[in-house]
Amino acid sequence: MQQCDTLIQARWCIPVEPDRLVLEHHGIAVTDGRIVAVLPLPEARAQFNPGVVVDRPDHVVIPGLINAHTHAAMTLFRGLADGLPLERWLREGVWPHEQRWVSAEMVRDGSKHAIVEMLRGGVTCFSDQYFFPEVVAESAVDLHMRAMIGTPVMDFPTPWAKNVDEYLSKATDLVHDPYADHPLVSTCFAPHSTAALSADSGQKLRVLADQLDRRVQIHLHETAMEIATTLEERGKRPLARLSEMGLVNASLMAVHAIHMTDEELQQISAAGVSVAHCPRSNLKLASGIAPVQQMLDAGINVALGTDGAASNNVLDMLGEMRTAALLGKVKAEDAAAIPASTALRMATLNGAKALGLADAVGSIEVGKWADLTCVDLNYINSQPVYDPLSQLVYSCNREQISDVWVAGRHLVDKGALTQVDLDEILQRSAEWQQRIAAV
Amino acid sequence: MQQCDTLIQARWCIPVEPDRLVLEHHGIAVTDGRIVAVLPLPEARAQFNPGVVVDRPDHVVIPGLINAHTHAAMTLFRGLADGLPLERWLREGVWPHEQRWVSAEMVRDGSKHAIVEMLRGGVTCFSDQYFFPEVVAESAVDLHMRAMIGTPVMDFPTPWAKNVDEYLSKATDLVHDPYADHPLVSTCFAPHSTAALSADSGQKLRVLADQLDRRVQIHLHETAMEIATTLEERGKRPLARLSEMGLVNASLMAVHAIHMTDEELQQISAAGVSVAHCPRSNLKLASGIAPVQQMLDAGINVALGTDGAASNNVLDMLGEMRTAALLGKVKAEDAAAIPASTALRMATLNGAKALGLADAVGSIEVGKWADLTCVDLNYINSQPVYDPLSQLVYSCNREQISDVWVAGRHLVDKGALTQVDLDEILQRSAEWQQRIAAV
Repeated sequence: MQQCDTLIQARWCIPVEPDRLVLEHHGIAVTDGRIVAVLPLPEARAQFNPGVVVDRPDHVVIPGLINAHTHAAMTLFRGLADGLPLERWLREGVWPHEQRWVSAEMVRDGSKHAIVEMLRGGVTCFSDQYFFPEVVAESAVDLHMRAMIGTPVMDFPTPWAKNVDEYLSKATDLVHDPYADHPLVSTCFAPHSTAALSADSGQKLRVLADQLDRRVQIHLHETAMEIATTLEERGKRPLARLSEMGLVNASLMAVHAIHMTDEELQQISAAGVSVAHCPRSNLKLASGIAPVQQMLDAGINVALGTDGAASNNVLDMLGEMRTAALLGKVKAEDAAAIPASTALRMATLNGAKALGLADAVGSIEVGKWADLTCVDLNYINSQPVYDPLSQLVYSCNREQISDVWVAGRHLVDKGALTQVDLDEILQRSAEWQQRIAAV
Repeated sequence: MQQCDTLIQARWCIPVEPDRLVLEHHGIAVTDGRIVAVLPLPEARAQFNPGVVVDRPDHVVIPGLINAHTHAAMTLFRGLADGLPLERWLREGVWPHEQRWVSAEMVRDGSKHAIVEMLRGGVTCFSDQYFFPEVVAESAVDLHMRAMIGTPVMDFPTPWAKNVDEYLSKATDLVHDPYADHPLVSTCFAPHSTAALSADSGQKLRVLADQLDRRVQIHLHETAMEIATTLEERGKRPLARLSEMGLVNASLMAVHAIHMTDEELQQISAAGVSVAHCPRSNLKLASGIAPVQQMLDAGINVALGTDGAASNNVLDMLGEMRTAALLGKVKAEDAAAIPASTALRMATLNGAKALGLADAVGSIEVGKWADLTCVDLNYINSQPVYDPLSQLVYSCNREQISDVWVAGRHLVDKGALTQVDLDEILQRSAEWQQRIAAV
């Protein structure tokens, strides 16, 4: 008999790799935070002597959900600026609040709120871009959440930095220390958009990203207006500008990528660029509908993200999966587009690939971190069950997420947060709301 | 002091009429199943001596949600036929199962499952069209749910009736007895679509609907193929055929109405036709996106429905409101389209209007039935609260629905079903699943 820390026994397990596989009555053995075996239950019981047995008879275990695009701290601005298109939303609804309120304290409280909201919703890893990224990283470590921390880069001053050299210098500090080789936190560069990046700044960023071997993520082709303005002011479309800066390569994650010509899709496919699709945010800002099935058919790796709470307005990856699956069908004019298995893959393994973490997480495979989410299907809205994959994507709400593990640590247990004082988090958010609403 | 049965004291109340009003710290007094007062809390407490006080300090009370289009019994087919467009979905995924399985027993079990799912999700009234409508009606009365029972009319035989005369005769029985003047159940005619209705059958239906003063609801212009086939086989678009039958009038609810020319929108607007918009079903079957803001601008009354669980796959009107609000923006290319207040109105008062029940339900007004839904906003995904209307539509999940009253009866109390044996319902659905999946 082999010792293991935890043996998870659930009715179903969907490992995501291989695609579409649904295992029934299997055990997942976890030791030192990693998956050590996935076996039929009788074999698992014969082989392992577990410290803890977690029995979930009506549940399906999936890889922890990966939220490929967030601005976590913006939970504190949730619902503040509905009904505006992107450009007005930024100029009237977001930037004035950010100039006034963004601080290390605000980013800590808002990020912790977001992280707890995501954990409760089955997310085990998020890719963030916001000011004070060092504080976002600390918050993730505090709450034992996996995170890709994007450091902002732009040409104009914000409460975090005053010019591009300061952005890049602060980003470099964060990369070196203390997250060079951290089990939970990775870092990357997160220029806001090509509109906020001169050719010169782009070059500097590219050189540094190459030197430090760090990935880049950027909002790209989110609205028709972004493209029209860039064409008018800079004579090129944003992707062409990014290409000139040398940034269109396999280290790039293009966030949104809604308005893409066939040639542009070919270009990013050939370059190995990943896309972070954020369907609900794209709908809410009336930005458009990304051609996701077309991207997948072109071999592009498409991940899934919620975007920030100010433009969604929730960080609910189960809901985002459902929206991606439904919306992708009408966009492709094909009810067979984005089947449930593909939506789940986008929200897990494709996310891991887009963040450069596919060796570590994104599927239930021996050797990967035990980042796992367990969903209870015994709810009236997801019964009866013909196909657990269909129920997961089309019928489940996040109240059904019963358990979450990050690197083997049991952070949500039968629906309860094990290590968080929820009331304290909500209290601090309510205090921010009172301050912000009073102005 | 005046006696009342119940006084509901919630942090917020959104009565829907007048539009956009959000009351804070008000009391809703209920007696004999009806709303007798909506007053600021101090006045309510001074005026009423309530039998029961329901205190909900972090909650918003709204009119009970009205699901304008269901095929309730199809919960038993949930997830059976994903990935098919409407015509193949019907021919391959639905009709064979219906021919084999539909019976009074199946309709009772499936409808009860659906009703409980809807009650738990804040729905207080649903408009159904399915076989054995007399059984759907009995199920609604059993569970004390308000229902508009649509009786099928079509030219081909099903397990319920063998020809149009039998459909119409059975429908007439149901109208007369016992639901002529029932507090919870109303009836209407529900021809499936113009494809299943000869000109002659349409005429018979129109005469009977006029005689009995009953409304009509029909699937209309759901897919481009429906229109093309009708044009080819009958030489006219479905709406034109319906118009010739004399059925395009203020008693008609057109379900879906996705593919509409500007002239057709003008026509149904002028005729006072209501539309039942079912956004998630329309996405899932890749049918298209209805031009909802354009309809509202044309003065058309647009209600909201889930459609059946086999094409959605949940009966979740909170989710449907969110989808309608998000999708309506991208369709109109305007982030200001379908604001939260409009989405809520579609899911309540517009639904009541579409069903001819606007004098009885759909808003929180003195004299109407106390069909009420209470939502707890003190969840991490809907905090902090700047605007309860925004939170309700963009941030709430149905786990947050704490209380539901239908005609004053407290059917969901702090999240618990008060009069239903949930395990029994789930057990019967599981038995159906085993039978159906075994074939």
